[in-house]
Amino acid sequence: VSGTRARHLREVLNAAPGQQVRIGIIDGAYGVGSVQAVGADAVDLRCVFDATIPERPPVDVLLALPRPKVMRRLWAQLAAIGVGRIMVTNAERVERNYFDTHILAPEGYRPLLIEGLQQARDTRLPVVSIHRQFKVLIEDGLFGLSAPALRLVAHPGVGGSIGDAMRKGGQARILLAIGPEGGWNSFEIRLLEAHGFQPVGIGSRTLRTDTAALALLTLAHDAIASRRPA
Amino acid sequence: VSGTRARHLREVLNAAPGQQVRIGIIDGAYGVGSVQAVGADAVDLRCVFDATIPERPPVDVLLALPRPKVMRRLWAQLAAIGVGRIMVTNAERVERNYFDTHILAPEGYRPLLIEGLQQARDTRLPVVSIHRQFKVLIEDGLFGLSAPALRLVAHPGVGGSIGDAMRKGGQARILLAIGPEGGWNSFEIRLLEAHGFQPVGIGSRTLRTDTAALALLTLAHDAIASRRPA
Repeated sequence: VSGTRARHLREVLNAAPGQQVRIGIIDGAYGVGSVQAVGADAVDLRCVFDATIPERPPVDVLLALPRPKVMRRLWAQLAAIGVGRIMVTNAERVERNYFDTHILAPEGYRPLLIEGLQQARDTRLPVVSIHRQFKVLIEDGLFGLSAPALRLVAHPGVGGSIGDAMRKGGQARILLAIGPEGGWNSFEIRLLEAHGFQPVGIGSRTLRTDTAALALLTLAHDAIASRRPA
Repeated sequence: VSGTRARHLREVLNAAPGQQVRIGIIDGAYGVGSVQAVGADAVDLRCVFDATIPERPPVDVLLALPRPKVMRRLWAQLAAIGVGRIMVTNAERVERNYFDTHILAPEGYRPLLIEGLQQARDTRLPVVSIHRQFKVLIEDGLFGLSAPALRLVAHPGVGGSIGDAMRKGGQARILLAIGPEGGWNSFEIRLLEAHGFQPVGIGSRTLRTDTAALALLTLAHDAIASRRPA
């Protein structure tokens, strides 16, 4: 390996011949690399990979685009906490110029997603899609994009908990819709409900979009994990 | 009111006479203020307060000091998600110079805590204490600082879930210990366990301290909320 990976091996891990390091192929298997030689521009590794590829995380997210500064912070955190798919969508309370940010281009978000995967030791890169038309996405797009899942929409202060919805539903995946800073408008909520999204709450406190997203995804993962032993 | 509060009323809320705004007294009641007059330096409000003061959030946190950049970001998020008390402690894997940061002085963290309370519409300022000696805190300090609570220590990849521990324990409060980036060392874990802290996990993913703290506090709040109806 060369470039940033060689630099990480040399400068952060102080790699020396004989040392073993954890490795992973994006969307592929984990493995172990034995350092063979450390050069100025490259590090030679002898790699052994697992026979199986980790499963994609069982939670997908449909996210109304927050302001670019928040979105930039969210990419790595979403990948670290674990999501299979990230659908970024428009909504009435999303400002139009938010879509002009380079943070929605693959070369903008991909390094941030990989940073999150490295943190969490996962290899499955979330699949990202950007949707400027909310109605088209919900009415026509979701069928092709989303595996069968318990559909939930976060709505502050109302609805049951994610755990309750999961105990009743019992699907293997959750698709979680998270609205913009000012919330979904009533048309958007009705359209989501008409397409099977049940409203769920996380208590009475109002949280910033990024804090709310992490809290909701944590509860979704916990609801799926608690379901498994039963 | 004057200063930043008057500016917020004028510039963000566009306050005009007759308008009603939500208000709250730090560690006191919520209320409603009716704008009487808007001046250059001050806004006159006629205030009516609720008869009761909101309860302190039922979750306390014992946090090994993360690096200053992360701690700076955490203050507002901790206050927004809701904690009664924040005990910041030393640990073997905390670098000593982290304690020199101004972010541990009340004038450094208080504005950030208030920002989080404003976001979440809460008035109860978390009580903060700073402890440079982990052993002294756990052996002698906790008795005076912490109300009776289910004591949990986050330990990646091991232990049951917070929900499971709560169903068995059933206390009204949770005190959650969150370790440094590299984890508690084995002496620290043993000392915590000897003082009643049960290990709990949040799955197999390794999360950054701030992401992990928010995830754990979310699950703690959810465990307490799920307990109430029963």
